[in-house]
Amino acid sequence: MNSTELWLEALMQIIPDETRIFTDRADLYSYSYDASFGTYLPEAVVQPKATEEVSNIMKLANQYEIPVYPRGQGTSLSGGPLPVKGGIVLDFSQWNDKLEIYPEDMMAIVAPGVLTADINNAALKEGLIYPPDPSSSNVSTIAGNLAENSGGPRGLKYGVTKDYVLGLEVVTPEGEVIRTGGRTVKNVTGYDLTKLIVGSEGTLGIITEAILKLHPKPEATATLMALFADLVAAGQAISNILRAGIIPAKLEMMDKACIEAVEAYEPQGLPTDVEALILIELDGHPQAIHDEILKVEDVCRETGATEVIRAKTEEEAAQLWRARKLVSPAIVRHKPTKISEDATVPRSKIPHMFQRLKEIRKKYDIDLVVFGHAGDGNLHPNIIADKRDKEEMRRVEQAVGEIFEAAVELGGTLSGEHGIGTLKAPFMEMELGAAGVEMMKRIKQSWDPKNILNPGKIFPEPGQRLVLTDD
Amino acid sequence: MNSTELWLEALMQIIPDETRIFTDRADLYSYSYDASFGTYLPEAVVQPKATEEVSNIMKLANQYEIPVYPRGQGTSLSGGPLPVKGGIVLDFSQWNDKLEIYPEDMMAIVAPGVLTADINNAALKEGLIYPPDPSSSNVSTIAGNLAENSGGPRGLKYGVTKDYVLGLEVVTPEGEVIRTGGRTVKNVTGYDLTKLIVGSEGTLGIITEAILKLHPKPEATATLMALFADLVAAGQAISNILRAGIIPAKLEMMDKACIEAVEAYEPQGLPTDVEALILIELDGHPQAIHDEILKVEDVCRETGATEVIRAKTEEEAAQLWRARKLVSPAIVRHKPTKISEDATVPRSKIPHMFQRLKEIRKKYDIDLVVFGHAGDGNLHPNIIADKRDKEEMRRVEQAVGEIFEAAVELGGTLSGEHGIGTLKAPFMEMELGAAGVEMMKRIKQSWDPKNILNPGKIFPEPGQRLVLTDD
Repeated sequence: MNSTELWLEALMQIIPDETRIFTDRADLYSYSYDASFGTYLPEAVVQPKATEEVSNIMKLANQYEIPVYPRGQGTSLSGGPLPVKGGIVLDFSQWNDKLEIYPEDMMAIVAPGVLTADINNAALKEGLIYPPDPSSSNVSTIAGNLAENSGGPRGLKYGVTKDYVLGLEVVTPEGEVIRTGGRTVKNVTGYDLTKLIVGSEGTLGIITEAILKLHPKPEATATLMALFADLVAAGQAISNILRAGIIPAKLEMMDKACIEAVEAYEPQGLPTDVEALILIELDGHPQAIHDEILKVEDVCRETGATEVIRAKTEEEAAQLWRARKLVSPAIVRHKPTKISEDATVPRSKIPHMFQRLKEIRKKYDIDLVVFGHAGDGNLHPNIIADKRDKEEMRRVEQAVGEIFEAAVELGGTLSGEHGIGTLKAPFMEMELGAAGVEMMKRIKQSWDPKNILNPGKIFPEPGQRLVLTDD
Repeated sequence: MNSTELWLEALMQIIPDETRIFTDRADLYSYSYDASFGTYLPEAVVQPKATEEVSNIMKLANQYEIPVYPRGQGTSLSGGPLPVKGGIVLDFSQWNDKLEIYPEDMMAIVAPGVLTADINNAALKEGLIYPPDPSSSNVSTIAGNLAENSGGPRGLKYGVTKDYVLGLEVVTPEGEVIRTGGRTVKNVTGYDLTKLIVGSEGTLGIITEAILKLHPKPEATATLMALFADLVAAGQAISNILRAGIIPAKLEMMDKACIEAVEAYEPQGLPTDVEALILIELDGHPQAIHDEILKVEDVCRETGATEVIRAKTEEEAAQLWRARKLVSPAIVRHKPTKISEDATVPRSKIPHMFQRLKEIRKKYDIDLVVFGHAGDGNLHPNIIADKRDKEEMRRVEQAVGEIFEAAVELGGTLSGEHGIGTLKAPFMEMELGAAGVEMMKRIKQSWDPKNILNPGKIFPEPGQRLVLTDD
């Protein structure tokens, strides 16, 4: 037998259930892509359902030096689960047999393949919430969210995935099983491996169980939309709301191009002659948010809002949010390829970032729309293109590079919530410097000396540059 | 010249200001201890005031293989800054020339030696707060708080030091200068070195600047004290308050022994026939906390409180909190040595922990009092002893070991906020297992191959055991 036949046979010893191992080309193809760019065929796919299985697979992978890629539901926008160097994909989507809520400890313990929205739904039955709400939460797995440290609109008030992780069970790249953190809110025993592994994009360990922090469900919510004839005024309104001591649960914005796209796709009655709209949701005590929403309205009017719409019922609130939800389907209507960026800047620099994005749109003659979580500086400049048009994609690649430059120059970051993966790896040194990347690499090397676990992510290969085609 | 003379001369080249280098025995003695146990003389003390100085010192230290220990104001309860292997202490307390508040970004940028309380005071002028409030905040430096990931009463609602760090400037153990994180709330660019360094007790890098997140100042506060004839009922009340969807800013408890000590020290009119009291501070919108404090009162009465005192004025609130503030001075009145532990358990296990502590007190015949941040499970069992009494201290050492065992068995942790340092190093494997400690050690070794930076902390030496005397 050759080496591949040998390790495949050993793999079948570890997973004694042939329905959980795939080696047919048609099956492998389903695991060759995610929601970003590029297709790469693995040699095998396994659906683990126990920590020991994962541990044994990693020991085997080290023995034969086979790359291993953990994968949830493949919703990554940065290439996290792509099997870029062949080898084994571990599909965790079927391992979802544990979802325990501990109301007394305001805590949940979950298996890696549980869908994020299911955790929130289970918490709600106990009067609690799991706050992180990436837009993929109905389809993405919790371990995928953990690996990427997913954000979402509620990040402004509640923080991101990392802020809700108390402890993990992790299989190391060499197959050891460790527990990090625990069931307590405070823990300073040694290095914070929990927060090191969350956001490490599956390169430092495989998450097989997570202990999550829950939060009491807010008593009430209030929603408001404000329209602005001027982009800078919208940015100033956001800043003034926060300066007034109000932290909304969500504070989203959409630019003129988004509004036009939505109105063309499914008319919501929004005026298309404004430059931007902001959408605000407050939550908390009913009296507190009643007072605060009036204050928000005043601030918006004082800062130059042309119109302010306050939802009077839950239906009206849902209607206002519908415009925001329609942005993604609306913008891909005239061209099939959406490049969704998440460059993030300090809040005070949002107007500057708008200006830079306007210049980039003009310079490279690209379809660029801007929406996102403006309250925390996490914008989503989206470029709409057609990946079959090579010339256009070259311009897009250059524009994306310049978006990253702008974010970093304004004191911001390449990625607020989507991760680095394969796509942004070439830009790491721009933000972190050679020494910063080097210190990260040392951790990776000390944990995974044979570079078995999710190779080709985060750290750029020599000469690697951004490629937004599937070739 | 011998090696020491050589590096001392080189040190004087790096710091061209003789008032910032100390080598006299009397001066060195001031840096030989902290607020924990043990005295160790360094060979030199330097007061750096620039990143480049720190960088050059680390390069020199690597060249001559001299241990280096960063130190703030020496308030560590776990031995963090102790120069256990001789070498150079870096005293950061004089480097406090930067304290900038950015209200638009709700952010502060600070030098390492700034006192933590000064940051909060500066933020207050802009209607903001820096929430972490370790009880040492008036005397401890921010870099010391960052190195130890300090907690405090407000941890329940607001989180701990780590939750307020956006970015750091760090000098690596080999003298490279890196920047981690940045000025944005969301950042997923590469591994989270910020949260790895915070809480690493000065073993992975030296913090020379920090970017901190601020929070709007709450509009109002409300305070309530509830007395309980039964410890388990007090624990149940804490749980029921949180289950009612109320997250107090502070939720502290004191047991009977604490109350008696305070009444003996400076009478506050507290009944000494109760088993426990809890002290609650709510903050937020005035109407919201008005409603909530009534609900808290109801919950306490329903759960068996014998008396509930609600502060009607700020003076009354201050008076209620005075009892809690007097605990530390009161309990050391009859014996000079206080061993302050911070073992932390899941909230639901607080009654079980009380029971275990009661058994330990009896078994080892020790003076043990319990108070602390009960809302987040972070109790402070304090043992009062006399360190000159060797026989008593042996019993205390055994009792402390058993407190750690109890915490870990109940799903908790050795340390919620004080750190591991020298004191708790022998217990690391009990909580983390050999593999967990090994993964931490790999990071340390990959960043600091010569073990120059703060050696002898966190990781146990072979055969190391708990010693609570100064010999």
